[in-house]
Amino acid sequence: MGQTLTEKILDDHLVEGELEPGEEIGIEVDQVLTQDTTGTLVWLQFEALELDDVQTEVAAQYCDHQTYQFDFKNTDDHRFLRSAAGKFGAHFSRPGNGICHNVHKENFAAPGKTMLGSDSHTPTPGGMGELAIGAGGLDVAVAMGGGAYYIDMPEVVNVRLEGELPEWATAKDVILELLRRLSVKGGVGKIFEYTGPGVESLSVPERTTITNMGTELGATSSIFPTDERTEEYLEAVGRGEDYEEVAPDEDAEYHDEIVVDLSDLEPLIAEPSMPDNVVPVSEVAGTDVDQVMIGSCTNGAYEDILPAAKMLEGREINKTTEMIVAPGSKQASEMLAREGWTAEMMAAGVNFSEATCGACIGNGHVPASDSVSLRTFNRNFEGRSGIEDDSVYLCSPEVATAAALKGEIVDPRELADEMGDLEDPGFELGDNYVGVSNSDLIAPDEAVDDELIKGPNIGDVPLKDPLPADLSGDVLLKMPDNITTDHISPANADVLMYRSNIPKLSEFTLTRVDDTFPERALEADGGLLLAGENYGQGSSREHAALCPMYLGIDAVLAQSFARIHKANLFNFGIVPLTIDEDTYEDIDQGDSVEIVDDVAEAVRSGAEEITIRVDDDWEATANLDASEREREILADGGKLTHVKQQYESGDGAAHADD
Amino acid sequence: MGQTLTEKILDDHLVEGELEPGEEIGIEVDQVLTQDTTGTLVWLQFEALELDDVQTEVAAQYCDHQTYQFDFKNTDDHRFLRSAAGKFGAHFSRPGNGICHNVHKENFAAPGKTMLGSDSHTPTPGGMGELAIGAGGLDVAVAMGGGAYYIDMPEVVNVRLEGELPEWATAKDVILELLRRLSVKGGVGKIFEYTGPGVESLSVPERTTITNMGTELGATSSIFPTDERTEEYLEAVGRGEDYEEVAPDEDAEYHDEIVVDLSDLEPLIAEPSMPDNVVPVSEVAGTDVDQVMIGSCTNGAYEDILPAAKMLEGREINKTTEMIVAPGSKQASEMLAREGWTAEMMAAGVNFSEATCGACIGNGHVPASDSVSLRTFNRNFEGRSGIEDDSVYLCSPEVATAAALKGEIVDPRELADEMGDLEDPGFELGDNYVGVSNSDLIAPDEAVDDELIKGPNIGDVPLKDPLPADLSGDVLLKMPDNITTDHISPANADVLMYRSNIPKLSEFTLTRVDDTFPERALEADGGLLLAGENYGQGSSREHAALCPMYLGIDAVLAQSFARIHKANLFNFGIVPLTIDEDTYEDIDQGDSVEIVDDVAEAVRSGAEEITIRVDDDWEATANLDASEREREILADGGKLTHVKQQYESGDGAAHADD
Repeated sequence: MGQTLTEKILDDHLVEGELEPGEEIGIEVDQVLTQDTTGTLVWLQFEALELDDVQTEVAAQYCDHQTYQFDFKNTDDHRFLRSAAGKFGAHFSRPGNGICHNVHKENFAAPGKTMLGSDSHTPTPGGMGELAIGAGGLDVAVAMGGGAYYIDMPEVVNVRLEGELPEWATAKDVILELLRRLSVKGGVGKIFEYTGPGVESLSVPERTTITNMGTELGATSSIFPTDERTEEYLEAVGRGEDYEEVAPDEDAEYHDEIVVDLSDLEPLIAEPSMPDNVVPVSEVAGTDVDQVMIGSCTNGAYEDILPAAKMLEGREINKTTEMIVAPGSKQASEMLAREGWTAEMMAAGVNFSEATCGACIGNGHVPASDSVSLRTFNRNFEGRSGIEDDSVYLCSPEVATAAALKGEIVDPRELADEMGDLEDPGFELGDNYVGVSNSDLIAPDEAVDDELIKGPNIGDVPLKDPLPADLSGDVLLKMPDNITTDHISPANADVLMYRSNIPKLSEFTLTRVDDTFPERALEADGGLLLAGENYGQGSSREHAALCPMYLGIDAVLAQSFARIHKANLFNFGIVPLTIDEDTYEDIDQGDSVEIVDDVAEAVRSGAEEITIRVDDDWEATANLDASEREREILADGGKLTHVKQQYESGDGAAHADD
Repeated sequence: MGQTLTEKILDDHLVEGELEPGEEIGIEVDQVLTQDTTGTLVWLQFEALELDDVQTEVAAQYCDHQTYQFDFKNTDDHRFLRSAAGKFGAHFSRPGNGICHNVHKENFAAPGKTMLGSDSHTPTPGGMGELAIGAGGLDVAVAMGGGAYYIDMPEVVNVRLEGELPEWATAKDVILELLRRLSVKGGVGKIFEYTGPGVESLSVPERTTITNMGTELGATSSIFPTDERTEEYLEAVGRGEDYEEVAPDEDAEYHDEIVVDLSDLEPLIAEPSMPDNVVPVSEVAGTDVDQVMIGSCTNGAYEDILPAAKMLEGREINKTTEMIVAPGSKQASEMLAREGWTAEMMAAGVNFSEATCGACIGNGHVPASDSVSLRTFNRNFEGRSGIEDDSVYLCSPEVATAAALKGEIVDPRELADEMGDLEDPGFELGDNYVGVSNSDLIAPDEAVDDELIKGPNIGDVPLKDPLPADLSGDVLLKMPDNITTDHISPANADVLMYRSNIPKLSEFTLTRVDDTFPERALEADGGLLLAGENYGQGSSREHAALCPMYLGIDAVLAQSFARIHKANLFNFGIVPLTIDEDTYEDIDQGDSVEIVDDVAEAVRSGAEEITIRVDDDWEATANLDASEREREILADGGKLTHVKQQYESGDGAAHADD
């Protein structure tokens, strides 16, 4: 039986397990990527592991989320990251040099490689045949140290592309169409592999728009085969030698198949406030638009912005609409400037911004109250733009530009008819790619730092002791269903600046549920959390486990856990126990809970049922659903301690079992 | 006896008084400028005055201080300002279109005109022979309504320029030299008039660097005569028809004369943390530099950035130093982009930012802790960059760029010797000026709004009742000497976003002295403040009077007042009474104070001595030092009510007495 492309790449990198969906596999990681809001913790953990040097073929530290540097803590973080990259041997991309996914695509991504990145849009270079997966910072630190990455083998889905895109339809409409069909949960536990005759009609920047936003389907990753279009791109960016042909076998078997006929697509738009809330643009035409933003890791390439520039040439944007262009990389900015397009766009009324994630995560260009913003970004979750009750639409640069010209949402085909002289600008690969300056992307062998530079806000990573025999404490907080990682560890700009300062960041833990919690937890010096269904849903941020750990939380009792958060609880040595609804109802905040058995012994021995005693009065059964590996991590006091012990005991770095 | 240029322009615009130093004069205002952090209050006051239309020849509303729009309140302010400009008839410059002084210079400033602006660097167009003065927002609102502007006639000082600048010395070094000689207090109550044979060697952008930073001398304004260089500039920006020759009489008499021989100048730098802390660059050479910033209203013109671009062409900045260029206007940005300089600078490692005041007021690109930042800006007050204990140096673009190349402070003459191929780029006037798009600078007759758009953060301006006969209350706060306007109404980014929301802004009033004050004041519903010497020193911000007024403060007892703050107290109907040291010592916080006389009557009748009774126990004499005009304003409950009454009683808008 033939293999899918995903299986081929995984097979090449497999160090443990079998490629059966649902089975845990360990893979070797070739490349690692991290950014500024997750990277500080990655390096603090790398330091805590007492590792000397980066072991992966490529490791790159980007500064893209907080590049406006609103606070010295942002700037200190960037300086620390430069010093960490220098000391440990990673490439360092300066603030202003662009968004990690864009800069990585231009400079490092290569067919057939595996990559782990501490950012949810890490799968972007799948458009070049690289298998790239987002993960927590600790997994990334371990991978940089040479350890394998463990994941449950996903299902591989064939997305068969047929036909070619008609006028005014774009790659963005391909992924919006998939979101419309499959929803934001449609990709969970899956890798989307694009095949079919339509593939060759798409260039690499178009493919990476699709793979980037596969994340919004909940997919583990997305990947395209490589071909002459891939080679053409690699040659354009000056890396023709990195080209390799990778493709699924002709008789590969997929878990599922989805067919998209590109020729059926039309301009689409995701309405507020979910990326799968997709309708044809014509359905919402006429809506007044206050702000248009072009950029982000989804549509921030030179090739994405060029159509907007062509549409604006010799024209002026509507006076009621502000248009901001934030290129995804300085390379894109420089190419646009070099060819005169920057000047043309400025003349049309565009405000050019730095190459940054910025507005996409609510940093800068926050929409006005009760206003509409059209963005070429990948997410429009309510409030993400920096204001509650926002109205953010997601669309292609062409649709966004049409709205800027008209001052309202308009199908660009309609606008073209109306204006007479407006043509589909088409999509063409840049032929003026320029190198990145050695100051903007500092190679490990040109590093300027050999010691870590820690500003006053940069702390150490707290470590937890191995799980003791006795575990007991009070229930410090009882929570309802569906508590998100945003409830546990908020991510607004005021809080994000403390991502390198766990004691300070911990002061915000669960304050959206109860603002007395952090102080009470610290005073209690140990205790438990109690929650309903789906505890920890949302992002992969490990701070949602690390901060409770710092505050002394030893265990969480919940009716159910979100998958990634549960993994993070193991990683930070907090025992995740599942209880039934009756038990949840019967325990109140303030009750004391004691694990009756020797908990360390129970965890290590594989016990699935754990008896808890409440208020020294009554008992109930809780469940611990964990793999052998997860049990070892938990018993050791978390992954950091676990891995450190492995290194110390001589289990080699190259293939440490995680 | 001949007249100075200042006297000639004032004479042309005089509506009241005589041109004797120290005497109050009223002048007609031709042009008005306002920006986003002061402008919202200007328009709210314009609205409260129930005026219909702007009466000045030009009124322009710029958005430059908060263009990153970190919060929806910034964006709402910008939208409100667009609607106010549209409704009342002002030009509206969008966020991203540039800094008020730069855009105004390019588009509106003209020889022989008078201008009032609600920004301290308003005197910038003095470099084109316009007499421009910074003022509080209420004065600007009144001037826009057609009212005269009242000011004590300043002394006019002749700054005689001789010789020509040698290589690597610049206009920035001229003003740094004056700051070195005269200190930041050297210009208080003065207007600096530049004359002499050295003038013709300086182009308009160089002259405006000097007039802009005259503000740091404390000067009321600075002005150059016009000549063929002025005409050349006006023609370059497409406004040759605005040229007019203005010059002092040959036998003009000045209050004082200062001679600067340009040929004696060398590259200078202001050390932290005061603009007059000036030394030759060579004295601090070798200091490591972490950040270099080029831009601001002082050195953000195309002509200012071009030398930096030429110095960077084909080179790379030092890897230890970040360099950010934020042009002063989009016009400058577009010109640099159109000629390829933007691409060259990006290739050298420069991070290009939006055209904004931004970092100059601590918004964005805050330096790292314990780091050195070289900036071409005009102020380096401690903490202004956004971090306490900062080390900000002020210098020319050439000196800043040299530091970026070397990674440390270096005299560019030394660097040129060291590098061999580095030449003084010189200073040349742009010959590729482009027009501004109609979307970026919306003319009154193309306005898109006819109603005010107020977001939820935009409130009304509170009005005070006329002064009553009886005034008594408790001393709500006793303060020491030298309380600044930053103590009274802080201006950091977290607070600035409430500049249009007086109830919310008032919650920060005097909290740096006592954080219980705002709540206590509101509860007390009336009361007094007690302070030592020099109460209200610092900025001209009227919020430092408006917020206490909102909280119910009726009078301030102080040993002495700072001049501008005292004027603001009159303007907002708070009685400023001077007391002697013994009285200050004898009154405690919490004591009740009653004005024994009929206070309204006493104020109107010109009484200078006011008897106060403390704790119904003992009496003391306080002094009210006020002009007749100030007494009327105070008795009417503040300037807004006063002017409104005048309008209603038919005292015409054209020359309302203030």
